[in-house]
Amino acid sequence: MRTVLILAFLLVSTPFFSQTEDEKQIKAIYDKALTNGKAYDWLNYLSNQIGGRLSGSVQAQQAVDYTKAQLDSLGLDKVWLQPVMVPKWVRGVPEFAYFETKPGLTTNVPICALGGSVSTPSGGLKASVVEVSGIEDLEKLGRENIEGKIVFYNRPMDPTLINTFSAYSGCVDQRYSGAAEAGKYGALGVIVRSMNLRLDDYPHTGSMGYGDTPVSNRIPAAAISTNGAELLSATLKLNPDAKFYFKQNCKQLEDVESYNVIGEITGSEFPNEIMVVGGHLDSWDLGDGSHDDGAGCVQSMDVLRLLKETGYKPKRTLRVVLFMNEENGMRGGNKYAEVARNKKEQHVFALESDSGGFTPRGFSIDASEENIAQIQGWRELFEPYLIHMFYKGGSGADIGPLKEEGMVLAGLRPDTQRYFDHHHAENDTFEHVNKRELELGAATMASLVYLIDKYGTIPSKKIKG
Amino acid sequence: MRTVLILAFLLVSTPFFSQTEDEKQIKAIYDKALTNGKAYDWLNYLSNQIGGRLSGSVQAQQAVDYTKAQLDSLGLDKVWLQPVMVPKWVRGVPEFAYFETKPGLTTNVPICALGGSVSTPSGGLKASVVEVSGIEDLEKLGRENIEGKIVFYNRPMDPTLINTFSAYSGCVDQRYSGAAEAGKYGALGVIVRSMNLRLDDYPHTGSMGYGDTPVSNRIPAAAISTNGAELLSATLKLNPDAKFYFKQNCKQLEDVESYNVIGEITGSEFPNEIMVVGGHLDSWDLGDGSHDDGAGCVQSMDVLRLLKETGYKPKRTLRVVLFMNEENGMRGGNKYAEVARNKKEQHVFALESDSGGFTPRGFSIDASEENIAQIQGWRELFEPYLIHMFYKGGSGADIGPLKEEGMVLAGLRPDTQRYFDHHHAENDTFEHVNKRELELGAATMASLVYLIDKYGTIPSKKIKG
Repeated sequence: MRTVLILAFLLVSTPFFSQTEDEKQIKAIYDKALTNGKAYDWLNYLSNQIGGRLSGSVQAQQAVDYTKAQLDSLGLDKVWLQPVMVPKWVRGVPEFAYFETKPGLTTNVPICALGGSVSTPSGGLKASVVEVSGIEDLEKLGRENIEGKIVFYNRPMDPTLINTFSAYSGCVDQRYSGAAEAGKYGALGVIVRSMNLRLDDYPHTGSMGYGDTPVSNRIPAAAISTNGAELLSATLKLNPDAKFYFKQNCKQLEDVESYNVIGEITGSEFPNEIMVVGGHLDSWDLGDGSHDDGAGCVQSMDVLRLLKETGYKPKRTLRVVLFMNEENGMRGGNKYAEVARNKKEQHVFALESDSGGFTPRGFSIDASEENIAQIQGWRELFEPYLIHMFYKGGSGADIGPLKEEGMVLAGLRPDTQRYFDHHHAENDTFEHVNKRELELGAATMASLVYLIDKYGTIPSKKIKG
Repeated sequence: MRTVLILAFLLVSTPFFSQTEDEKQIKAIYDKALTNGKAYDWLNYLSNQIGGRLSGSVQAQQAVDYTKAQLDSLGLDKVWLQPVMVPKWVRGVPEFAYFETKPGLTTNVPICALGGSVSTPSGGLKASVVEVSGIEDLEKLGRENIEGKIVFYNRPMDPTLINTFSAYSGCVDQRYSGAAEAGKYGALGVIVRSMNLRLDDYPHTGSMGYGDTPVSNRIPAAAISTNGAELLSATLKLNPDAKFYFKQNCKQLEDVESYNVIGEITGSEFPNEIMVVGGHLDSWDLGDGSHDDGAGCVQSMDVLRLLKETGYKPKRTLRVVLFMNEENGMRGGNKYAEVARNKKEQHVFALESDSGGFTPRGFSIDASEENIAQIQGWRELFEPYLIHMFYKGGSGADIGPLKEEGMVLAGLRPDTQRYFDHHHAENDTFEHVNKRELELGAATMASLVYLIDKYGTIPSKKIKG
């Protein structure tokens, strides 16, 4: 990249906007985020001083204490912890796996237990393998081909889908329900190809469930790295009798008490109308949870600080909520909604960031057509920041339970290309978060909160009346 | 990130497009790039088997040989090397620098010589430092405050500019002209803050020029890492008499012969109308040149392959040109244009990728209003791929010399947030390129080439007539 011609095109391409009040406020927010953001420092602490924060762990409690203390330091009107009972699943000693093509001829492969899985027998589990490309193959194969074996789910994510979350959605049933379904046919365990578009050596964990499978019939489930899956699949083609061995001693313990962390700026005109911005404070245990969802937490915290520091006083009550236990139970999101209903709180808006700390591209919006149209009408205000997506779609897992008619829910939508390289894996770590990308996300969220607060949402009764 | 709600919003948000011919062809291009792209493998070789490819180096020649062989293997109509004489500047042994607050009390800082700089005296150069925030400070300071000193240019890139290339443009005069200007006031050398928005320990090189400064009056110039610059600046505030020492033994040798690498699919209907797609094959020597501009080269090569593999036969002649010596001389771009003019070739379109292998966002277009409007009219075809920027602006340094009235020039515009973390530094390396992001760029370029070829450009005479 050379200098001279670049200069020329930049001069031509800088757009001109008249400095309306909204443009000025939004520019103030972005400038503050990019010059004096706190999100990156907070994330550094969460990731590098605390690390992975699985529900019920010491680290999860440290994250509660740390973020509460940080919110306390911001001079908000109110900061509190909301108790919630959460499941506590522990991984135990590192998992171990290999496949064996002849007795004694083994090749180790990287695996990790799926969250919620039972352990293998204490000496591990060794069996023949049946490779399938999805749950629907089980019925075709029948019990006679599955019983006593390990089922290997190997359907890859579809690389042609531009939104990588679509590719994830198209595969994750293998991870979530693979064990429960294979167990019905007498499988002894399941190995699932990691939800990762890239070929590498990281196994990716994530939640799985046994449904109504009786405890005694539950079989262990582990993820294998994508390279490991390719190797195993190639081996099975040459040697269908190859055996797979794996050992894990993860365990589900009793529920323990934990907390949602909440901070509030009380509204100056409509204190009873509540706006929520949030992410989830828990993470998987393999990495440090920087993208999933440390990023969303620190961005949400910075939304309140950015509005404060730019001198904007919300008319409505603005809350940051750091939800506990999104990954393996959703207890925090459900508890927050339950308490809100019991207190008859009126939530008008909720925004979640839980898709990684990458360059923001826009929002998906779960609301009435009128509210979506209002937000799309603000498109030009976001153009200077290259925010261009405002589409009807879901919001976020934690804020979903708040949904009521007339309410506006939204999710921040960053660029998705790199997300599943890191998701739920050992390499979801701080150095893979770019400071500016993280800060742009926080500013984008704060700008939407500002506009929603200033112009209000369109309640459903107005539409009907 | 959890599964269940995600599924819901993705179903809602997937857009529907009727399958016109253009939509089908463009989808075929993207599908091919994402499932069977060659760009990433080629880049792996260029980066990891060859490495940094400064003009005139053995590695530059290896890159010429490798890319020519790869183009030969694609079954194009013609592949050739275009000779061009290039400057040969060599870095010599690693640079060394420290500052000294008291005799014997020194702190080492990371520096690198700027490309084209002269060496220091063989024992190095040690002098007091005068910090400035730009060339315009020199006149205010005057010779009495500069003579016999090292000038330290420390104006940082502006973090509030969303397009980081704008921030680069606003700073790079310090690097390019800082030595020539400071030399006029009797400075002994210059140290320039690296063109990097991030605080880290990598010095970033890049071209500089002495203008018409006589050889005997040329002073050495080096870049210091951003952390080093912050430390030096803080030190100078406490201790204005601190001395800076640096040593480098870089050298400008005689020009040597090198090559532009060119491959062509001859047009089936209008073989005399030429379309060019390209990047530059040379790179700086500190990293392996993966983003700058290995990415642009392999994307450009894949444009021809993607069109071939999807069965599209261009009506116009389509050339990939891998330009030599963009970084420190522009000889390749100038030579290509010179030969084209001598042969009276008619170039109708040229597209360059030289802004890194990050997620593509769109194009800047240097063309008549009518041609820009035509391209903007294709916006909807690009929407499924989240390509949203089609703005009037410059194209690329290498294709700039081709510019003639009626011609359309364009530059691929990827996301810019991370580019200057790596630009011209030791960490411009393969592992910082994401395969999908690179492939999406190649597909985006191929799609524009397809549309330009199919619909043609709007020549200026038509407009006038």
